[in-house]
Amino acid sequence: MTESLNGTDWSKGSGYVDGQFHPIAEAKIPITDWGYRRSDVTYDVVGVYYGAFFRLDDHIRRFRASMDKLRLKPRESDEDIARILTALVRKSGLREAYVAMDCLRGKPGPGVPYHPAFGRAYLACFAIPWVWLFTQEQQARGVHAMIASTPRIPAESVDPTVKNFHWGDLTKASFEAFDAGFETAVLLDRDGYLTEGPGYNVFVVIDGVVVSPLRGVLEGVTRQSVFDLCAELGVSHQVRPISRGELTQADAVFFSTTAGGIMPVSRLGARILGNDRPGPLSTRLRETFWAKRRQGWLATPIDYDAAD
Amino acid sequence: MTESLNGTDWSKGSGYVDGQFHPIAEAKIPITDWGYRRSDVTYDVVGVYYGAFFRLDDHIRRFRASMDKLRLKPRESDEDIARILTALVRKSGLREAYVAMDCLRGKPGPGVPYHPAFGRAYLACFAIPWVWLFTQEQQARGVHAMIASTPRIPAESVDPTVKNFHWGDLTKASFEAFDAGFETAVLLDRDGYLTEGPGYNVFVVIDGVVVSPLRGVLEGVTRQSVFDLCAELGVSHQVRPISRGELTQADAVFFSTTAGGIMPVSRLGARILGNDRPGPLSTRLRETFWAKRRQGWLATPIDYDAAD
Repeated sequence: MTESLNGTDWSKGSGYVDGQFHPIAEAKIPITDWGYRRSDVTYDVVGVYYGAFFRLDDHIRRFRASMDKLRLKPRESDEDIARILTALVRKSGLREAYVAMDCLRGKPGPGVPYHPAFGRAYLACFAIPWVWLFTQEQQARGVHAMIASTPRIPAESVDPTVKNFHWGDLTKASFEAFDAGFETAVLLDRDGYLTEGPGYNVFVVIDGVVVSPLRGVLEGVTRQSVFDLCAELGVSHQVRPISRGELTQADAVFFSTTAGGIMPVSRLGARILGNDRPGPLSTRLRETFWAKRRQGWLATPIDYDAAD
Repeated sequence: MTESLNGTDWSKGSGYVDGQFHPIAEAKIPITDWGYRRSDVTYDVVGVYYGAFFRLDDHIRRFRASMDKLRLKPRESDEDIARILTALVRKSGLREAYVAMDCLRGKPGPGVPYHPAFGRAYLACFAIPWVWLFTQEQQARGVHAMIASTPRIPAESVDPTVKNFHWGDLTKASFEAFDAGFETAVLLDRDGYLTEGPGYNVFVVIDGVVVSPLRGVLEGVTRQSVFDLCAELGVSHQVRPISRGELTQADAVFFSTTAGGIMPVSRLGARILGNDRPGPLSTRLRETFWAKRRQGWLATPIDYDAAD
């Protein structure tokens, strides 16, 4: 199924940078571009599982909204983006893939003011083998998390609804977790309210109600899927500020992300949740999520045999 | 003087990525590396003017301190870095160059935990023709700046003394300035104290004293040069918090950066400073700075004819 173009093996992934397709190892960003050098870029990631995209339109819609907020206008339309992502997955032959779309600002050319208003926007996308943010084993026994001392970058400085690479606080929190023997760390804002973790949204379960933070977070597509599943399963859910106290006292905690779906937590700092195992509601949501995915829920199947 | 290697013109710049030299157009970052994808990277920029580096050791020392703080350990020693930067300038033949050194975290390989503790660090450096953050004309008549409404990312979230590409707030401020007809914008912290601007440190002159913010800023090498010049010229200088009121009431304002030296400001929002011209002290510092640079102040001359 894997295409071999010019004798190149695309099975490890494929990339598209500024109009050109490349094997993933050759998909690169110019070192002088502001998309890298000033992290002046937004992105989105859509998952492919069972040979189909999940909520492709939702990801492209969010990606376009992010680009608009940063005043990034690449030449490609939304339909072009869908076509490019499909071509990337088809080239790679991957049935399970992590598919990213980035829009970067280049650097103004000579003779133009040295200001982002004059930098051209372009797309860089790729498909690589599926990434599990936490392994299947970690998901089965529950992720070991802690609360980071590093506060999340405030929304007034960098808008978290524009998916971005400003991960300095998240990376610092990841090292805090590593040093303390945990796998990850969730971050609070400067007022002590829960935000998100490195690569995922956070949910708590309090008295049978699923609660997720209102502000200071990415409006995750998998987060939306959790709300949809709650509605379908008749589980109450809320979006509101969550204090540190509510987080540490919650009956259960779980994460959501494209790179793994719904991931239960079994430890939060010193606290052992649900006998050190995923809680029943988290497990039910996780299992329902994957069962529905298998059945083609909100899927855009990929025709691997089509011509580009 | 410009080397031509394999028939390639290096005059537009030269790069070094993970052990390999390239013409600048081929110096690129893998799209999947966390140095780009999570902005998990630190950098430094040293200027070359009159065929010599300025304060090369200071830049490499700060770069090493930044790498240590992010737990980035590339294979190259400080001496290696000096050699690489020298080779880059020599290859390009540039007498005036903007010379950058980045240290990025790659992505953990297969079978390794998906955590930054397991990502390999590597260097990416380049030399390109000298960059003026503000044109000579803008410097001569004074830069037109405003105070951004976007607050600077707090130091507790991302340490500003570790030179970084978390420019989302700075870019947003640049667009605020653009929309309001200014060339740039300085940022305050969330408590209303002056921090820095996109690519430069800020100074105010109050009653003949040169004052620069204490916290929430990069410890700029050119900022240090301003302190050194003040000492030499017998001008009092202070490093302390500067309130919005002190900023807006200051007698003069100027910026400092590697990419331009000392740059006077003539407008700050609605306020016209010094009859819409650079103030006498800012001008004196700027002229002294360049006069001393021409005389080889803290310079490391480049032997353009040496073999690599």
